[in-house]
Amino acid sequence: MRILLVGASGTIGSAVYERLKDDHDILCAGRNGRDVQVDITDEESIRQMYESTGRVDAVITASGSAGFAPLTELTPEKNQTAINSKMKGQINLVLLGIPYVNDGGSFTLTSGIMMDDPIPQGTSAAMANGAVKGFVTSAAIELPRDIRINNISPNLLAESADKLGSFFRGFDPVPGDKVSLAYQKSVEGQQTGQTYEVY
Amino acid sequence: MRILLVGASGTIGSAVYERLKDDHDILCAGRNGRDVQVDITDEESIRQMYESTGRVDAVITASGSAGFAPLTELTPEKNQTAINSKMKGQINLVLLGIPYVNDGGSFTLTSGIMMDDPIPQGTSAAMANGAVKGFVTSAAIELPRDIRINNISPNLLAESADKLGSFFRGFDPVPGDKVSLAYQKSVEGQQTGQTYEVY
Repeated sequence: MRILLVGASGTIGSAVYERLKDDHDILCAGRNGRDVQVDITDEESIRQMYESTGRVDAVITASGSAGFAPLTELTPEKNQTAINSKMKGQINLVLLGIPYVNDGGSFTLTSGIMMDDPIPQGTSAAMANGAVKGFVTSAAIELPRDIRINNISPNLLAESADKLGSFFRGFDPVPGDKVSLAYQKSVEGQQTGQTYEVY
Repeated sequence: MRILLVGASGTIGSAVYERLKDDHDILCAGRNGRDVQVDITDEESIRQMYESTGRVDAVITASGSAGFAPLTELTPEKNQTAINSKMKGQINLVLLGIPYVNDGGSFTLTSGIMMDDPIPQGTSAAMANGAVKGFVTSAAIELPRDIRINNISPNLLAESADKLGSFFRGFDPVPGDKVSLAYQKSVEGQQTGQTYEVY
């Protein structure tokens, strides 16, 4: 398949790339993407990306940031980072990308464990995660031309544990190699509307 | 208790008012609220509302709209209605309202069944519902001064079935009187971080 991987250079994106690269033609996208550059917070940038790539069989997004702050310091303005990036960024990749996905193709989005198993300072991310899950559950029943959509909700990644472990006290990190299997299942399988929890 | 009920004149708000009015002092808020006017899509309007009400024991939001459109016609712009209103409107009522809720008080938000049991044209609402659920799950662990937060996720209301039933084919509507019990449980109980599904 021809796969557009947004966030290819991130921790998850790299693991997904390793998992899929031998069997598929992968276009690596991101702010400084190897094959195509995109800022997912900018609708026009998303449109330009799709115009430059043309049709693909699958779009994977392992991208999007969120602000971390104690709830009492989480202003509407700080909350906007997660809304613009992790939430709208991924969702707009779907809304604007449908015409560019081949019949029977798929979208795979990324949420995260914090919506189910919350951590201090993680409320903005949990909100975005929940939005992505709700969107995917519903979009699945309306996508045209047998296009499928799933969401991967990973735990803290082992590769990120040194950097982020202090936020995730007591969490049992999962290796990127294991998380990448869920993306493979979404892309190469036939399920739709699922949130695969890799906890 | 002194309860601020945002969206008091809506179908759910009216049922919640009837359920709680004999035991509590309820401030009815909304665009044309009996006691206080607020536009939840406008942060400044929310700030002014709280300044005018002063401290309360509970904030209930049964408010927020979302655009309904087939997924292939759901532009990022149309999706923004649910983001600004049902999602950010309710979430900003919490972020800006914490200082105005008494110790041991509560917030109660409203999502909806579409995030779990999707309907055609409901993806924007499902997204907002999921965001509210994720936000509530996470905010509960960080709210100060023993303040609690819960989310009510109702099915189609019986009172709305004539108007909205054609969107919810085969759904079994629940009476507002039954839905209002979940709000009572949230406000008068001791649980936090819950999503009460009244399906």
